[in-house]
Amino acid sequence: MKPSGIITLLSDFGLSDAYVAMLKGVILGINPDARLVDISHQIQAGLIVQAADLLLESFSFFQKGTVHLAVVDPGVGTSRRPIAIETDDYFFVGPDNGLFWPIIQKNDEIKIAHLLEKKYHHPLTSPTFHGREIFAPVAAHLSRGLPLEALGPRIKDPVKLDLPRPYEQDGFLYGQIMRIDHFGNLLTNIQKDKLQAFLQHQTPCIELGRLVLTKIHFVYADAEPGEALALVDSSGCLEIAVNRGRAADLFNIKAGDILKLSVK
Amino acid sequence: MKPSGIITLLSDFGLSDAYVAMLKGVILGINPDARLVDISHQIQAGLIVQAADLLLESFSFFQKGTVHLAVVDPGVGTSRRPIAIETDDYFFVGPDNGLFWPIIQKNDEIKIAHLLEKKYHHPLTSPTFHGREIFAPVAAHLSRGLPLEALGPRIKDPVKLDLPRPYEQDGFLYGQIMRIDHFGNLLTNIQKDKLQAFLQHQTPCIELGRLVLTKIHFVYADAEPGEALALVDSSGCLEIAVNRGRAADLFNIKAGDILKLSVK
Amino acid sequence: MKPSGIITLLSDFGLSDAYVAMLKGVILGINPDARLVDISHQIQAGLIVQAADLLLESFSFFQKGTVHLAVVDPGVGTSRRPIAIETDDYFFVGPDNGLFWPIIQKNDEIKIAHLLEKKYHHPLTSPTFHGREIFAPVAAHLSRGLPLEALGPRIKDPVKLDLPRPYEQDGFLYGQIMRIDHFGNLLTNIQKDKLQAFLQHQTPCIELGRLVLTKIHFVYADAEPGEALALVDSSGCLEIAVNRGRAADLFNIKAGDILKLSVK
Repeated sequence: MKPSGIITLLSDFGLSDAYVAMLKGVILGINPDARLVDISHQIQAGLIVQAADLLLESFSFFQKGTVHLAVVDPGVGTSRRPIAIETDDYFFVGPDNGLFWPIIQKNDEIKIAHLLEKKYHHPLTSPTFHGREIFAPVAAHLSRGLPLEALGPRIKDPVKLDLPRPYEQDGFLYGQIMRIDHFGNLLTNIQKDKLQAFLQHQTPCIELGRLVLTKIHFVYADAEPGEALALVDSSGCLEIAVNRGRAADLFNIKAGDILKLSVK
Repeated sequence: MKPSGIITLLSDFGLSDAYVAMLKGVILGINPDARLVDISHQIQAGLIVQAADLLLESFSFFQKGTVHLAVVDPGVGTSRRPIAIETDDYFFVGPDNGLFWPIIQKNDEIKIAHLLEKKYHHPLTSPTFHGREIFAPVAAHLSRGLPLEALGPRIKDPVKLDLPRPYEQDGFLYGQIMRIDHFGNLLTNIQKDKLQAFLQHQTPCIELGRLVLTKIHFVYADAEPGEALALVDSSGCLEIAVNRGRAADLFNIKAGDILKLSVK
Repeated sequence: MKPSGIITLLSDFGLSDAYVAMLKGVILGINPDARLVDISHQIQAGLIVQAADLLLESFSFFQKGTVHLAVVDPGVGTSRRPIAIETDDYFFVGPDNGLFWPIIQKNDEIKIAHLLEKKYHHPLTSPTFHGREIFAPVAAHLSRGLPLEALGPRIKDPVKLDLPRPYEQDGFLYGQIMRIDHFGNLLTNIQKDKLQAFLQHQTPCIELGRLVLTKIHFVYADAEPGEALALVDSSGCLEIAVNRGRAADLFNIKAGDILKLSVK
C-alpha cells in the first residue's frame, strides 16, 4: 500500500499538557513531510471502547494509505503488546488492548506486527510513554513507506473488545447509548439496516428513560426548538437528540443507558 | 483570485468528537496539499452571531486567496441554502444563515453561489452533516482553483444577520458585550472611531453593572493586579478587563449585557 | 543554524477565541511552508512558571532548527522586552519575562535579540497583542532563515525565573508539585538523579498530604486500579499517580503542595 503521507492522532491525552506535541515532534523528526490531523485527544482517560468507536466512525474518511495512530493505553509498560496493523487500505498503530478490534473484524485480510524491532523506536525509552517512544516513530516510518514486516514478528491473536450490540427479545429491540457527543446528542449502537429490518415501515415506539418517541425524523430542525426527536445520524445509527438543545442533560441520559424499541 | 492553499475551519463541533477530523479527511482527499488552520471549534452550539463575530475578527489575517470554511448550522438539512462566497480577497463556504452577513456587508463586489452542483459534494449524503458532505469538499475544490461559478447558480439575496450596534440616546452612548473571551475579558461592539467621536478627548464615564470606569487605559498592566480597566483591544473595540483577573466572573457580566457611556 | 521549517506554539490563549488562529495566519503569510505544531494553549492565564515547565519538557523532541514561539505575556505593552533566543539547536521567541529562563540556563552559548526592528513586525500594532504583531512574524522570519542579528540589538540580561528546586533538610528531601496533568497525575520537581542519590537503594518513604508511599513503581499498572503509586515519569521526574484514577482529586493535591521524602 502506498502511504498517503497523512497520520491521524487519537488519544486520551487532552490538550493541556505537551504529550500530543511530543508525539508530533517525534513524527516530524522522522518524516518532515507528514501531514498530521488530530481526530480527538478528549477520549475519557483509559476508555478504550470510546476510542474504538470514534476511530471506527472516522477512519475511512481519510485517503487510502493513511496511518491512524491511536493511544488510549492504560496498560502501558505491562505485557500488553504494541502493534501495527495493515488492512487493504490503512495502517493502524497503538496498543493491543482491543482498541482496533472493530477495525480488525471489518477486514478479512489484515496483517498485524508486534512492534519489537527497536531500530524503529525512539532512543529514549521510558516505560510509561509508548505513544512517544514506540507508536509515534513507528507511525512516522510507516508513513514513509517502511513495510509492516520490518517492525516485528507477525501475530494472529489480537486482543478482542466486547462492543455492546443491539439484541431482540420478546418482540422488543434493545440498544445502548454508546457516546454522548459535544451537542449532547445521544449516539446509539442501532444501525440503520437493523432499525429498518425491525420496523418494517411500521410506526416505532422508542423508550429511553422517561422519553417516548414515536417517529423517526429526518433532520434536527424537523422538531420544534427544545423538542426531542429520533433520527438516523451522519454515522448511520439511530440517534436521540433535542433540536437546539442537549438531550443528555435534559433527560439525564448517560453512555451505557439502554433504549427499547417496539412497533405499534 | 489565486488560491493561497490555506483553508481555515470554524465551527461549533467541539473537539471531543471526530466531526472536525472527518471534515479534514475529506478536504485532504481532494486537495492533499491544503494547509488547514483551525479558527475555533468552541462556538456555543448553534450561536451564529458568535461565529460571525469571530470570523469577522480574524479572516483578514490570512493570505489573500484563503478559503474560510465556517459551519454553525442549526438548520442543516432544511431549506436553508448551502453557499460559497467570493470577495476580492477571500472565499467563504458554509450555510446561508447570516453567518457571513458581516463579511458580505463589508464588500461591494461579491459573488455568491448556491451549492447545488453535486459533482463537487461527497458521495455520502446524510441530511445532518453538510459540513462533511458539502462544505468541506467545496472548500477543498476552491482551494485547488475551481471557479465559484462551477459550484451552482448565483444568488443575490443572502440571509441577513442583525448584529447589535451601539447607539446614542439622551447624550449617552449605549453598547453591548458581544463576547467574553478566554481571559474573561468583555468584548464590546463599540469601535475605536465611534468611541473617539463620542468622547472628543473628554473624560469618559463607563457604566457596566456595578462597575464605573473613568479612564481609557492603554494596556492591561496599566491597572493594578485585580483592578478593572477599559482599553481599546487588539480588534479595535472598547474592552472591559481586569488586570490578571477575569472581569466576567468578578463583575458577573454576560454576553448581551449593556454598557452606558457618558462624558464628564 | 538551518531552520527545520517547524514552528511550535505555546500560549495561555485557550481555543475558544481566534487568537491562536490569527498568529497562524500571520505566520503563513510570511512563510507559507511553515509547519505549525501546537504545544498547548491551555496554560493557566498568565502563569509563566507553568509555560516554562511545559516548554522545558517538550522543546527537545522537535528537530534541530525548530522555532518555539511561546506567549504567556501578562505584561504585554509595558517595558518588558520582546525577545528572540538562539541556542545551538533551537530558536525561541516571546516575552522577556522569565518564560525562557530554564532554557537559557541549560545552554552555554546563547544569543538573545531585543526585537526592536520593526521591519519584521506586523504593520498593525496594537499594544495588547504582541503575539500577533511581533512574536508571530518574527518566528516566521526565523523559520525562513533570517539571522537573529537582523531582529534587533543583542541583550545579555534576560529576566530570570525562580523555579522551585528540591532541597534537603534534617535528613529529609523536600520537593514540590509543579503541575497536575490531564490525568490528574502529580508531577514533581524531583529528578531521577536527585532521587536516586538521596535513596541510595534504600526503601523510600514519600509523604504528600495524607498519602504515604513506600515504593517506587515502574508503570501505572503496577498498582491496583484505584491505588496510589510513585514512579519516575516520562519526563524523568518523580510522579505521584493513581492507577486508572485521578490522584489530584482523590487526595486533594494542588500545584505548589510540598512532598517530603525519607529513607527507612
